[in-house]
Amino acid sequence: MIIILRSDATKEQADSLLALIAEHGLKPLYMPGSERTVIGALGDERVLVPLELEALPFVERVLPVLSPYKLASREKRPGGSTVTVGGVPFGPGTFTIVAGPCAVESEAQIGEAARRVKAAGAHMLRGGAFKPRTSPYSFQGLEEEGLRLLAAAGREVGLPVVTEVMDIYDLELVARHADMLQVGARNMQDYRLLKELGKAGLPVLLKRGMSATYEELLLSAEYLLKEGNKQVVLCERGIKTFEHATRNTLDLNAVPYLQRQSHLPVIVDPSHGSGLRELVAPMAKAAAAAGADGVMVEVHPDPGHALSDGAQALGPDQFAELVGSLRDHAALEGRRLA
Amino acid sequence: MIIILRSDATKEQADSLLALIAEHGLKPLYMPGSERTVIGALGDERVLVPLELEALPFVERVLPVLSPYKLASREKRPGGSTVTVGGVPFGPGTFTIVAGPCAVESEAQIGEAARRVKAAGAHMLRGGAFKPRTSPYSFQGLEEEGLRLLAAAGREVGLPVVTEVMDIYDLELVARHADMLQVGARNMQDYRLLKELGKAGLPVLLKRGMSATYEELLLSAEYLLKEGNKQVVLCERGIKTFEHATRNTLDLNAVPYLQRQSHLPVIVDPSHGSGLRELVAPMAKAAAAAGADGVMVEVHPDPGHALSDGAQALGPDQFAELVGSLRDHAALEGRRLA
Amino acid sequence: MIIILRSDATKEQADSLLALIAEHGLKPLYMPGSERTVIGALGDERVLVPLELEALPFVERVLPVLSPYKLASREKRPGGSTVTVGGVPFGPGTFTIVAGPCAVESEAQIGEAARRVKAAGAHMLRGGAFKPRTSPYSFQGLEEEGLRLLAAAGREVGLPVVTEVMDIYDLELVARHADMLQVGARNMQDYRLLKELGKAGLPVLLKRGMSATYEELLLSAEYLLKEGNKQVVLCERGIKTFEHATRNTLDLNAVPYLQRQSHLPVIVDPSHGSGLRELVAPMAKAAAAAGADGVMVEVHPDPGHALSDGAQALGPDQFAELVGSLRDHAALEGRRLA
Amino acid sequence: MIIILRSDATKEQADSLLALIAEHGLKPLYMPGSERTVIGALGDERVLVPLELEALPFVERVLPVLSPYKLASREKRPGGSTVTVGGVPFGPGTFTIVAGPCAVESEAQIGEAARRVKAAGAHMLRGGAFKPRTSPYSFQGLEEEGLRLLAAAGREVGLPVVTEVMDIYDLELVARHADMLQVGARNMQDYRLLKELGKAGLPVLLKRGMSATYEELLLSAEYLLKEGNKQVVLCERGIKTFEHATRNTLDLNAVPYLQRQSHLPVIVDPSHGSGLRELVAPMAKAAAAAGADGVMVEVHPDPGHALSDGAQALGPDQFAELVGSLRDHAALEGRRLA
Repeated sequence: MIIILRSDATKEQADSLLALIAEHGLKPLYMPGSERTVIGALGDERVLVPLELEALPFVERVLPVLSPYKLASREKRPGGSTVTVGGVPFGPGTFTIVAGPCAVESEAQIGEAARRVKAAGAHMLRGGAFKPRTSPYSFQGLEEEGLRLLAAAGREVGLPVVTEVMDIYDLELVARHADMLQVGARNMQDYRLLKELGKAGLPVLLKRGMSATYEELLLSAEYLLKEGNKQVVLCERGIKTFEHATRNTLDLNAVPYLQRQSHLPVIVDPSHGSGLRELVAPMAKAAAAAGADGVMVEVHPDPGHALSDGAQALGPDQFAELVGSLRDHAALEGRRLA
Repeated sequence: MIIILRSDATKEQADSLLALIAEHGLKPLYMPGSERTVIGALGDERVLVPLELEALPFVERVLPVLSPYKLASREKRPGGSTVTVGGVPFGPGTFTIVAGPCAVESEAQIGEAARRVKAAGAHMLRGGAFKPRTSPYSFQGLEEEGLRLLAAAGREVGLPVVTEVMDIYDLELVARHADMLQVGARNMQDYRLLKELGKAGLPVLLKRGMSATYEELLLSAEYLLKEGNKQVVLCERGIKTFEHATRNTLDLNAVPYLQRQSHLPVIVDPSHGSGLRELVAPMAKAAAAAGADGVMVEVHPDPGHALSDGAQALGPDQFAELVGSLRDHAALEGRRLA
Repeated sequence: MIIILRSDATKEQADSLLALIAEHGLKPLYMPGSERTVIGALGDERVLVPLELEALPFVERVLPVLSPYKLASREKRPGGSTVTVGGVPFGPGTFTIVAGPCAVESEAQIGEAARRVKAAGAHMLRGGAFKPRTSPYSFQGLEEEGLRLLAAAGREVGLPVVTEVMDIYDLELVARHADMLQVGARNMQDYRLLKELGKAGLPVLLKRGMSATYEELLLSAEYLLKEGNKQVVLCERGIKTFEHATRNTLDLNAVPYLQRQSHLPVIVDPSHGSGLRELVAPMAKAAAAAGADGVMVEVHPDPGHALSDGAQALGPDQFAELVGSLRDHAALEGRRLA
Repeated sequence: MIIILRSDATKEQADSLLALIAEHGLKPLYMPGSERTVIGALGDERVLVPLELEALPFVERVLPVLSPYKLASREKRPGGSTVTVGGVPFGPGTFTIVAGPCAVESEAQIGEAARRVKAAGAHMLRGGAFKPRTSPYSFQGLEEEGLRLLAAAGREVGLPVVTEVMDIYDLELVARHADMLQVGARNMQDYRLLKELGKAGLPVLLKRGMSATYEELLLSAEYLLKEGNKQVVLCERGIKTFEHATRNTLDLNAVPYLQRQSHLPVIVDPSHGSGLRELVAPMAKAAAAAGADGVMVEVHPDPGHALSDGAQALGPDQFAELVGSLRDHAALEGRRLA
């Protein structure tokens, strides 16, 4: 850790800091300069984080040398991790496709969706039962009934299912019906929920918050890993920017960046990442070419009449065509469909 | 509602949409143009929102005419609302100051903080017991013990207290100790929690999410109002932008904008809004001059040794000086300290 | 055009607006509603743009129905345009690779760069002579000497060259040496320069500004087209967001979005779009899979000792490998290397 | 300067870097750690900037200790600078009001505007002759004729005038008519223009680019100062964010931040900073309370019929009322109207 002092910091203040660093078992380093004094702390600087040294009135800035996450770091597992959900792998060498409607709407709808995405080659079924909707006047999901329908549809076609959990209060219920628990973008920093999910024993699909940095995403993953849950898949789903022609700005830099910083698999959600049906296939293919470990795509039997986010859903035929393209682009990057 | 069709939409498709609008009790309007056909729907267009017409394959864009929120709208109460918490009003004519440390750290710390902010003129005490921290290795709050200490400190000096609740799971516990419940920026779109808070019977301080638009903030307030809770205070606390020299970009446009769109009181948090101690006082004064209904300021007895966010905390003397300045700027805007 | 009036607008004010619309040759439409009156203007609404109706005190919002650009619109040329530079095509069916160093540094450096990128399969040579550098203490480019060296290097290996022009003042000089003129991200809204480039008779590579929307980019292209220059290639090069781990956030949604809105070719600059050498190849391949018309990649004979932006430059061997991958991904999208 | 090496950097690579630092006259420091080796360079690290050490393949990150600007730094003049334009001071102790229409439209319009803002108490007249407009179909300004009318109007009422210059090509012409030259937000990083303005001998009003960080703004000022022009006033005018209800997000944090980092005066443009007439006065007052050195406000004799940006212009009476409020808020911050 590098600590830059204010230009008016005294020698006594610098000394107090050097002593504090030594007390915590790190090697302190004193670097007086012409304009600023710089203090170094050599060793595992993470023990200094809780001290919040930037709060000291004579400190100008604190520059960490090491990443603030440990368990999520690539250095822990240079070869990358594979997360397996109901027999479906996410990780090196495979390209995994999760598909299904934004929301479970009825037995017929989710059943038809399940059959069509399975036939097209999807590996996992998605569908929301608790829907985070911006407006209280929008469809909010079928809740428990939706969970039952989703699980049944998955069983029928032989696909494991992933669905979102929004609150600890619902965790036990959702866990009873799902093979993988999704943390939505709006809850990526709901640390109370993350701690419980860390103990829940089910794989977690952690979506990047719409204003979360890569580091914040990896620190949220660290919450899960720290509690003992090693089954974590990261998902880039677009960030909030000034560009409003698309719903979000899909940040594909995230794929190679996160894969170099972390051992966790990284998939991409081009549906939320663009919000426009016509952009979903190009962005899914781009994700495959960028080396992603998979994609999650919204597919609805009849997108024009979806109760939620229909504008970004593919129809079953569009999806089937996309799967073929993904197979080819992924193959060029050394990955087979899971 | 105005619906713009794609250039290749057929007359039959337009007719089907006109019929759908009429079925829902609105007056349909057909406006064929040289390049695009436009469809209007006159009346309370909010009944059309759940139809998600933008998902129809022949629809290019849907332009709402009315705001998507109703209960939060200024038109409901043109004179503005006053929310009262333990005798302390937020609203027209008053300027209300909430102060206290980021986190409750110990009985001595919160007691001293309470005495100092009370003496300086604060109207309400803040302090976190459940702390949402980016890193799992940072101090996470004293939880239940923190709630007890906060409540006791408030009682001792005669200030009502506000503290954050992060999950339904903790709601009953937090509600037992607090006079007002805070929804943090990271949870502004935790709609499960909002629904429960709408029924909880306690005033709510709703902080703007770090990537939430004004409209999204007002829709989150709408969740609370729709469930019957009319005691809602909005809080601007800075948004995430490309500028990282400050922790957040405090968006003071929010103050006059929200006050014109909504009847709910609007306060400002200059501590999170800048993240730098030296910017807190200028931004608090700016909030008063912009016409805010109050401010929430982090004050710590010894900022240099705070366990959380010390870099943005004022010391007690700096805070006392600020209160005097706020009194003067607020007076120019026709407001007295509450 | 749809004009929403304020709730307190009078019938007289609405009438005055209806008359104004009729005067300008459009069909006015009066839509009184329960909460708001809406006015429509049917026909080529662009004639109303200069009136700036949103400035009228009784107008709440103006919603355009048509895109504000005409000449850049896809509807003008549904099959897409091909722009040809020194025999090299940009457009449907081809994938075009522009490569070279950020800045021209010496005869040896640009010569070696030209030979290596040509050998690897690049179609055009890039290199900056006037460099927009954030700091006045950074290398600013060789200016006229750089232009001469670039042109000579291109001639030697048989590649047309593209280089940036920053000011009308330099236009004639740069035009003498370049086959294509680049407008950098910082100058995308330098409308004085765009107007002159519209008359300059050379193809233009128009880079998206770092905070420019798609619409603003297309309006900048419209400046060029309006002055008679039809040889315009658009370039997505990343936008400024809160994520600072990468230099910019490469927005690949731009590729399919712009291609659907405009007939102009769209290429991608993954070097500035990520700013990190290790991300350049994945993002270039993603661009190809997203259907881009080409890429522009920074390649330096010795990236570690580049005078400008070396951290994002590929070495010649990395580039050669990338060209092979691009060939394969582009082929899947029906494009051959130009 | 602190240089963090990649985890796989060799001792030889570290040694080569240490030698390089020593060669440039700085004191090298070797700090091997358990996970990363860190290299320090003590002394005036700015001599290392042109080396772009981050491009070296074994370097992970470069962390500057000192600010990259020198002449703009507060440490150069801790008391702050005063810039004087035609007798009007910008700087400590005064609050300076620049007002006038967005664009010069006619002799009558600019004359009336000049008389009204002078009568209300403005200190300087603004008005655009070369207008950067997003659409080529919008009013582009009266150019030379506009400059003449502006200068005449200013002379008549005894106010110095400021107007925008967009290109070196126009510089001589604009300089002949203006007392102060404005660099618009879209040109803040037009370094060719900045270099010429640095030699032009007239005071410069440098507006912050819509996606420029504080550091980038100060580096643009450094371009001016480095060429010998010390008469530079900075202007915060709002930045591009995801919030589109307002035209821009006015970032008032910029005022105290820039004043602490730089000696240059800082004024605020609440007109572009909000884009909404009703927000201009609250934001102007907020700027005064935040300690700004002044404001620039758009005032039009008849805002509803302005040819440019009328939606954000105040009428003359609204402006007169605002000046009174600004006097009072500024007085609380120890400033008198200039």
